[in-house]
Amino acid sequence: MVMYFYPPSIEELISYLTRLPGVGPKTAQRLALHLLNTREADALGLAQAISEARRKVKRCRVCGNLTDDDCCPVCLDDTRDNTTLCVVEQPGDCIVIERTNQFHGRYHVLHGSLSPMEGIGPADLNIESLLKRLQGSDIKEVIMATNTGVEGEATALYLARQIKPLGISVSRLAYGVAVGGDLEYTDEVTLGRALQGRLNI
Amino acid sequence: MVMYFYPPSIEELISYLTRLPGVGPKTAQRLALHLLNTREADALGLAQAISEARRKVKRCRVCGNLTDDDCCPVCLDDTRDNTTLCVVEQPGDCIVIERTNQFHGRYHVLHGSLSPMEGIGPADLNIESLLKRLQGSDIKEVIMATNTGVEGEATALYLARQIKPLGISVSRLAYGVAVGGDLEYTDEVTLGRALQGRLNI
Repeated sequence: MVMYFYPPSIEELISYLTRLPGVGPKTAQRLALHLLNTREADALGLAQAISEARRKVKRCRVCGNLTDDDCCPVCLDDTRDNTTLCVVEQPGDCIVIERTNQFHGRYHVLHGSLSPMEGIGPADLNIESLLKRLQGSDIKEVIMATNTGVEGEATALYLARQIKPLGISVSRLAYGVAVGGDLEYTDEVTLGRALQGRLNI
Repeated sequence: MVMYFYPPSIEELISYLTRLPGVGPKTAQRLALHLLNTREADALGLAQAISEARRKVKRCRVCGNLTDDDCCPVCLDDTRDNTTLCVVEQPGDCIVIERTNQFHGRYHVLHGSLSPMEGIGPADLNIESLLKRLQGSDIKEVIMATNTGVEGEATALYLARQIKPLGISVSRLAYGVAVGGDLEYTDEVTLGRALQGRLNI
């Protein structure tokens, strides 16, 4: 007796969808059936958008950020401050910092953090172009805005040790309690750092 | 001053991804960056699989289930019982029932349930072909395996009223406590049904 399974084309689609982060077999099945039931323009539009993005998106030749052009709009912008550079792990991090409206300098995107556990060394990150970029530039301060986990911290320390000899000052984002957050739900390491860095009022 | 945003091709990809069920703006952003960072074969493979599935998958002309061919393997299978028909809402429901190994009859897939709230009436479901299929067939029993919510129940009742006049018996899946489940966590409606349907041991 033949049992009913999804036809090969749906199984194929499900198998590609399960490779997405956070998508298990059940979610993949739901997404696949949705893509078959939704308007054709939405489904084929997604397929097209994936191919287009893969074809168009490059890394900016100055900062390494993602862009459709040779150089990203921030690097091309003459009105930005040339003396401060903010180093981040991922393109999304730039967007979060832009939203604060507190930073008007330049960016450099590493595309990851040092991780000996996963075999990611300095050569795997966008570090060489960072060091080249600093030499003979107007940059006076580099702000390390890598993540605050073990790997982000190690990356910030590693880079600080390379950059300081160039006579450029290196800073790190302040650690402390979140604005609007409850002390009760703040972890003790963060609270300890917030105490150490306490401010006069 | 120019602010950094994602380039247009990434924004486009994110906008298509947010149209997927259960995918919010943050998840869409994460998926988009994953699709840009992952192996080219995985990303383009997904794009290709979406287009292929949209092109190939049709509804079986007998039961309405999804298939790459004109008729699904279950309908083509001569060894299945022609006297019982199981009516389900979605193709995925067939697969769950197949896994029980307790049903060897035929299927009919409605592709939804009656929902006056969402404006889904009998004409929007695969019902006409069901009634045609029953006329002059060997089918002696129709098992309603629609979902047990309000809409699934209404659909089962509506169909039962159409099918019984044809001299075909109509049954519904048994309601009761889940096997291996804790009584404590069973809702009172289900438990009430399980009491009503109690079995001699």
